[in-house]
Amino acid sequence: MTIRIFVTGGTFDKEYDELNGELFFKDTHLPEMLKLGRCKLNADIRTLMMIDSSSMTDSDREIISENVERAKEDKILITHGTDTMAETAKVLGKKIKDKTVVLTGAIIPYTFGSSDGLFNLGAALAFVQTLPSGIYISMNGKCFSWDNVRKNKQTGKFEEIE
Amino acid sequence: MTIRIFVTGGTFDKEYDELNGELFFKDTHLPEMLKLGRCKLNADIRTLMMIDSSSMTDSDREIISENVERAKEDKILITHGTDTMAETAKVLGKKIKDKTVVLTGAIIPYTFGSSDGLFNLGAALAFVQTLPSGIYISMNGKCFSWDNVRKNKQTGKFEEIE
Amino acid sequence: MTIRIFVTGGTFDKEYDELNGELFFKDTHLPEMLKLGRCKLNADIRTLMMIDSSSMTDSDREIISENVERAKEDKILITHGTDTMAETAKVLGKKIKDKTVVLTGAIIPYTFGSSDGLFNLGAALAFVQTLPSGIYISMNGKCFSWDNVRKNKQTGKFEEIE
Amino acid sequence: MTIRIFVTGGTFDKEYDELNGELFFKDTHLPEMLKLGRCKLNADIRTLMMIDSSSMTDSDREIISENVERAKEDKILITHGTDTMAETAKVLGKKIKDKTVVLTGAIIPYTFGSSDGLFNLGAALAFVQTLPSGIYISMNGKCFSWDNVRKNKQTGKFEEIE
Repeated sequence: MTIRIFVTGGTFDKEYDELNGELFFKDTHLPEMLKLGRCKLNADIRTLMMIDSSSMTDSDREIISENVERAKEDKILITHGTDTMAETAKVLGKKIKDKTVVLTGAIIPYTFGSSDGLFNLGAALAFVQTLPSGIYISMNGKCFSWDNVRKNKQTGKFEEIE
Repeated sequence: MTIRIFVTGGTFDKEYDELNGELFFKDTHLPEMLKLGRCKLNADIRTLMMIDSSSMTDSDREIISENVERAKEDKILITHGTDTMAETAKVLGKKIKDKTVVLTGAIIPYTFGSSDGLFNLGAALAFVQTLPSGIYISMNGKCFSWDNVRKNKQTGKFEEIE
Repeated sequence: MTIRIFVTGGTFDKEYDELNGELFFKDTHLPEMLKLGRCKLNADIRTLMMIDSSSMTDSDREIISENVERAKEDKILITHGTDTMAETAKVLGKKIKDKTVVLTGAIIPYTFGSSDGLFNLGAALAFVQTLPSGIYISMNGKCFSWDNVRKNKQTGKFEEIE
Repeated sequence: MTIRIFVTGGTFDKEYDELNGELFFKDTHLPEMLKLGRCKLNADIRTLMMIDSSSMTDSDREIISENVERAKEDKILITHGTDTMAETAKVLGKKIKDKTVVLTGAIIPYTFGSSDGLFNLGAALAFVQTLPSGIYISMNGKCFSWDNVRKNKQTGKFEEIE
């Protein structure tokens, strides 16, 4: 079994620019994070884009959706910014029926000392192995179905809609 | 749903003694780790013991087994040293049939910069929510059934027996 | 001997806002950093402002200068953003003659895993104890006199002007 | 100006062995630490030994002393375990008169999250640049002369003898 990991950017992979003091994207930290977790799963990582999810467009979501459809693996993990993670899940939920797709991200960049990223990555990899076909969001140790999840903008936490 | 977490010690919770330069146990870091992971699950933590798994006796395993049996929750996570994790899983596997129990641990103490603990904790919490009744070990991103797992002493990794 | 520490903000004390993904100031991390360094010096910390040095005005520098003049201690450390650290040093250098004042900062926020802050703090505290009266910048392990230092905008490093 | 750094081991450079759970020495972390501190000093690192200072013998101290004497640099930093750092300082203090030698170390290994090592390294590099010829110990932000320092075994802190 191989797990396909698609990287789209988000807080997960933000870095601090020493010269101008701003946050930016360079390369994904996924391989380093899998190594830190001593992960022994077969995981195949491909970077689709490196963007903030707040600037993700319909055509970006189209790219993600096409890659999920074309992937030969049926267990797929997507790293994604949290702001519009629920939107992308909806786009995928309406199209993809025969694969287990788990979206996850982080509230704090991995390169910072206090990131939740490693915890979320561990949980997402476990959910993708065990859940039936469907589109899910894994955040805060929980798993949400694509058609019943939103990010609470006040608390920053994911929750069921009803 | 509440997840019961039993703490038994192991590398997870080892600390460095500044005065004598040796590793020792003080309090569990589980609450701090759940906070770092922004975990929003209902988790109830109880420390059963704080020992190296290499010094765990039959009567220690009896204590763990009794606590698992008596717990009113049917989803149980146990933090455990890796050296004899597979042995404890076997003891539980022969007795406990109606609960989902996941044992996990770490190769590097949580208080060290490069610990795999947070990754393992995230994965174990996801597995315990999704797997059917049974006793499992969650390490290296994988999940093993109690009756087909061992720690490879040469590599330090968990693997299936056959 | 007591060392007076004035906090003015800068990258040293930047934090990551979980809700909006931006960097911001809350409280200074100086007490935590001194504790981490097991520092046993008598150090008295006062926060004068919490700002980016790029937005520091003449009147902010006036506030710093007055506080340095009025301080009863003659060994003073100032934490400061790096962008205009050399400018503030010049303002102080023209006014303060009878105290040892060392400005320091960080290229990476302390709350990030890879900060230079703890190294710089250690060096600055050593320089302030040993150097004669004067205004200095301590960065990159080096010490510069206020009248012969600039930040190289290309490399982000401090260097002598000639 | 070049600063000579002699590495002798000590807590500074201890690592955690994933396979047997014990602390051990591999390579020195000094180059990595200087990089993290964005140190721009010319520093030349040589590893003399990699041992606990509690197991350091008279002949080990002889090796250190000879290397200090033969070094062409007159500013020398020595990383050393804290247990017998004061003893080595005494051996050097009686022999070396024309160089500035600063011994430093750490209470917590650098590879652990909460190490004082980077703070101590910054301070020691500053002291070695500014202090007159003599043998010193730099710990806890302070600097001690070789003939008036001891490690308090109860508190783990360095202090003046009288």
